[in-house]
Amino acid sequence: MLSYKISIIGSGNLATRLAPELENAGHRIVEVCSRNPKNAKSLIAKLYNAAIKYDYDFTQSVAEIIIIAVSDDAIEEVAKEVALNESMILVHTSGTRSLDLLSYAAADHKGVFYPLQTFSKTKRVEFDHIPILLEASDDKTMRVLQNLAGSISKKTVPLNSEQRKAVHVAAVFSCNLVNHLFRVAEEILAEKKLTFDLLGPLIVETVNKSLALGPASAQTGPAVREDYETLDAHMEYLKDDLFRSEIYRMISQDIIDTR
Amino acid sequence: MLSYKISIIGSGNLATRLAPELENAGHRIVEVCSRNPKNAKSLIAKLYNAAIKYDYDFTQSVAEIIIIAVSDDAIEEVAKEVALNESMILVHTSGTRSLDLLSYAAADHKGVFYPLQTFSKTKRVEFDHIPILLEASDDKTMRVLQNLAGSISKKTVPLNSEQRKAVHVAAVFSCNLVNHLFRVAEEILAEKKLTFDLLGPLIVETVNKSLALGPASAQTGPAVREDYETLDAHMEYLKDDLFRSEIYRMISQDIIDTR
Repeated sequence: MLSYKISIIGSGNLATRLAPELENAGHRIVEVCSRNPKNAKSLIAKLYNAAIKYDYDFTQSVAEIIIIAVSDDAIEEVAKEVALNESMILVHTSGTRSLDLLSYAAADHKGVFYPLQTFSKTKRVEFDHIPILLEASDDKTMRVLQNLAGSISKKTVPLNSEQRKAVHVAAVFSCNLVNHLFRVAEEILAEKKLTFDLLGPLIVETVNKSLALGPASAQTGPAVREDYETLDAHMEYLKDDLFRSEIYRMISQDIIDTR
Repeated sequence: MLSYKISIIGSGNLATRLAPELENAGHRIVEVCSRNPKNAKSLIAKLYNAAIKYDYDFTQSVAEIIIIAVSDDAIEEVAKEVALNESMILVHTSGTRSLDLLSYAAADHKGVFYPLQTFSKTKRVEFDHIPILLEASDDKTMRVLQNLAGSISKKTVPLNSEQRKAVHVAAVFSCNLVNHLFRVAEEILAEKKLTFDLLGPLIVETVNKSLALGPASAQTGPAVREDYETLDAHMEYLKDDLFRSEIYRMISQDIIDTR
């Protein structure tokens, strides 16, 4: 197993989860760069021997890979300020931003290292099944990123920026938009003094079935059965709330149209 | 533990899963009534000593509880035909239909016994955490249904018909509509030669987080961050598909409005 010396820019949710994971896999985090000293100190405390660094000049650093793990909006600014040696690899970790964004940096070796997962500082996640989506400016960089990703996950996926954009849009549909439908369900229950946990077993089984059979085969419920009596009763129930009734109507209609 | 003698009308997904579960819990299924002889035979084969019955006249039966486990549309017809003794309890198993639907039957003791889960003939489910929603025409019937439900699940929930309707609407939002968003995600990926399983770990973590923290606190992604650059990029990506772009726009806007 190859071992790399890595510096991380950022100390948010992803940096906090990723840096210790990389050290567990045998790499060394040499520096954490952050403009939030409190977050940076709390991250350093989890690492073997990393230093806090307050600028983006890596020309004197021993790091081989510089990982930009800041919010999407801040990547461009960091790329403009960063100073690197010729052999260093510079990567960002965004699902939406293109590799080209790193062209602002004077870097010969650029890449994207995007773990497809939702991270919180307070919740541990297992990395070994998280797909890590990779993109690189050149073959040598791709090989290094494959080694790095392969050391923490069984699933490394080389993608171009256009494919990664599709993955990110699909992720919003199946996670953020889905979570908002859970919130609507929670509110519908709360209006009758009932709690969301009532739906827990049903939601877990729905997801398991959808992942096992594929969502087209797994569909159940009144729309796919064309049970118009139930659909009408639900539309009547929802009629005082424009958002709920429109979402219910539009998605149910599409379920019927794509049966 | 009280043991009941039970007859089941129907041999579909729910009947096929429920009847053996009730026998495992110490009850006895005396009859299975079905107009589909093939399904009925296959269900009988899973039971200790049940008979196939081709009519709905239970006046000579030893059954104490008659469970109607047919499709929602067929409940009324069954209720109109059924003949019972005075002491027998008649229940249906629908999430959407009201208790009143059983008024077509000359039954003194009526109820609803609705396991809140999605059932398939081919997939085993664990009953012990499935909420069983109960409604009854009288206190004695409710006590019997609580005993019966409590023998197969730790979670029995007495609800009136109006509450059960809210649960069913909420279940459609968080399961059938959610599953359709998974299907949209699958199609977006397929257009770039990528497969839905890529999203598996992200979906599982999203659901776990939503159930642990509640959907309002668990929300992540571009809308809740008000990252308009990403939202605009996604809308541009989706612009040729009216359904996808409208759903994305409406739900994202509601996420922003309810932050």
